[in-house]
Amino acid sequence: MFEAKIDASTLRACVETITAIVDEGKLRITEEGLKLRAVDPANVAMISFVLQRDAFDDFQFSVESEGDTEIEIGMDFMKLIGILGIGGREDVELKLDENAQKLYTRMGSLDYTLSLLDPSSLRKEPKVPELEFPAKVIIETEEFRRTIRAAEKIGENIVLGVDGEEFYMEAEGEMDKLRLGLGKEQLIDLTPETVSSLYSLEYISSMSKGISHVENITLNLGKNYPLQMDFALAEGKVKVSYLLAPRIESE
Amino acid sequence: MFEAKIDASTLRACVETITAIVDEGKLRITEEGLKLRAVDPANVAMISFVLQRDAFDDFQFSVESEGDTEIEIGMDFMKLIGILGIGGREDVELKLDENAQKLYTRMGSLDYTLSLLDPSSLRKEPKVPELEFPAKVIIETEEFRRTIRAAEKIGENIVLGVDGEEFYMEAEGEMDKLRLGLGKEQLIDLTPETVSSLYSLEYISSMSKGISHVENITLNLGKNYPLQMDFALAEGKVKVSYLLAPRIESE
Amino acid sequence: MFEAKIDASTLRACVETITAIVDEGKLRITEEGLKLRAVDPANVAMISFVLQRDAFDDFQFSVESEGDTEIEIGMDFMKLIGILGIGGREDVELKLDENAQKLYTRMGSLDYTLSLLDPSSLRKEPKVPELEFPAKVIIETEEFRRTIRAAEKIGENIVLGVDGEEFYMEAEGEMDKLRLGLGKEQLIDLTPETVSSLYSLEYISSMSKGISHVENITLNLGKNYPLQMDFALAEGKVKVSYLLAPRIESE
Repeated sequence: MFEAKIDASTLRACVETITAIVDEGKLRITEEGLKLRAVDPANVAMISFVLQRDAFDDFQFSVESEGDTEIEIGMDFMKLIGILGIGGREDVELKLDENAQKLYTRMGSLDYTLSLLDPSSLRKEPKVPELEFPAKVIIETEEFRRTIRAAEKIGENIVLGVDGEEFYMEAEGEMDKLRLGLGKEQLIDLTPETVSSLYSLEYISSMSKGISHVENITLNLGKNYPLQMDFALAEGKVKVSYLLAPRIESE
Repeated sequence: MFEAKIDASTLRACVETITAIVDEGKLRITEEGLKLRAVDPANVAMISFVLQRDAFDDFQFSVESEGDTEIEIGMDFMKLIGILGIGGREDVELKLDENAQKLYTRMGSLDYTLSLLDPSSLRKEPKVPELEFPAKVIIETEEFRRTIRAAEKIGENIVLGVDGEEFYMEAEGEMDKLRLGLGKEQLIDLTPETVSSLYSLEYISSMSKGISHVENITLNLGKNYPLQMDFALAEGKVKVSYLLAPRIESE
Repeated sequence: MFEAKIDASTLRACVETITAIVDEGKLRITEEGLKLRAVDPANVAMISFVLQRDAFDDFQFSVESEGDTEIEIGMDFMKLIGILGIGGREDVELKLDENAQKLYTRMGSLDYTLSLLDPSSLRKEPKVPELEFPAKVIIETEEFRRTIRAAEKIGENIVLGVDGEEFYMEAEGEMDKLRLGLGKEQLIDLTPETVSSLYSLEYISSMSKGISHVENITLNLGKNYPLQMDFALAEGKVKVSYLLAPRIESE
């Protein structure tokens, strides 16, 4: 049994962080809240998502069989975004019908019955690889997003790196070159290091749409190493972590 | 002879209610004001439109032959919308040249000479069928329009119905279902009844664009029966009535 | 050597007046500021553009050889517009590397290295023809632009003329006709005359995009004669003049 109530804009922001990586996925409902871990179809990016119970105004959960600790449902997140777009600013009430495999959503006077996807038709939840990051940067989201938008006009890849006490983002096209360099004093935090990696701008762009409601993000970086981008929503009650594989520098 | 002056935004709102159903039509000018009755090309929806003389700041009308009581002109309403889009917030002065079949419009320093259509090339004005509606609902336009926009994402049809003291709108797709249910206390008025009909969303969507400047609409409903939607503009000086044929429920 | 600093919005407005006529061109940098004269690919419209040194917050210029008085660079103005779109409201710092043929632009923490075009691959700077205009009209830009937008819905050409103490703009389509007539009192200035010429709306539309940040424009007119449109930006520190060839009236 799962019944819950949550602020519409919080739920929308949550689902947007997920649709930055996948259109559909397995959502696990437990006593602690909602969880998802999913890899994009090309196996390049991963999201780990936790929506804590205390982010809800109301949260009721129980399992049918005694041994169980969670309910797994298959969700079409793109459709859920569409539904939330309809509802305005009201609270959203959610009610799961496990037998019928439906999720009832209510926003004010509006009821929407969403058919769930068969979880067995969805990809298996990925394992999180063990990683150690030598450098960590905390940056204002808007500065990061603006640079990503600019880089999109130049090429397909972007370098993220730390050079001593400077964090930089660099994109190079056939003709032109763009570079953002931020000293430690322009950042919220930085571990001095000398690392850099090349990433696909297409993926970073998707991710940067998912963080539009976030103030700061933490970038974990290494030398030709994956990027881990961490951030929180709803006063820390929602935690999201993106992992992105690096590209090989062709030089 | 016809010469008149009217507020540009009033005229624009009027023409928008007409273009929701037809692109062009016969406008009848009489001592009382302007009138139009027209059916859409597929014969599914009808509009009855009255723009009263007192909605004008200035209204001069006379007929050439003594027996006549009206002047009939063929109007391209899509073009008129375009012209009104140019003019900003000024008053619009209209002057008919019957012989040249031109309508002179003046908005501030801007003159626009609009060629009229040959009325004999346009469809005949339809008869209004005699109908009796068991149920009547008065609803805030915004609530109605919002639900229509949501339903468009689900399917092609929508059910409008009254179930006891509740008015409801229901759309069902292959997977999902949407329902808006409003009790009598959430409506401006409702006749308790048990009726419902299925309508084409495409037509209801068009109509709901025509009512964007209206606060409330009256829905007249029956059992598998046409929908009559009535509303007023410009403090009651403009009266519009849409009629929409029902679809046959396939269940 | 050229290094300068300028307000981003001023530079953007400047570049927009240029891209109304050409995508790329030769920019001449001198002790007095920046200059450009260019003809559109079809040889119908010309721009003369001057950005004075005092429009810059900082301006440093020197030539390598003693005899030289200017540096000529080949600029992709469409790309420059794109770069300025990235940078927000910060000042723009410009620094030319003549040997590498690069223009370094810095906006806050963001560096953009723009490759210059080879000036020899660009069209030669045109000569300005000697012209004498019998009539001059000074008009509010917004009134002019609004009429141009309206005329675009009617046809491909527009007449600009002066008839005694009235300035008029007239567009005629197959069916409809549009006319804006402004008396001397509705204009900032007018030389009473009787002249008119027909121009391509496509070109006038482009020009009217270039003047969106300008309050007034001066129109110099004659009988079947070119149009010269003059205006200033940045408190007179930027001066732009468009020249447009007339079309032959087919009547």
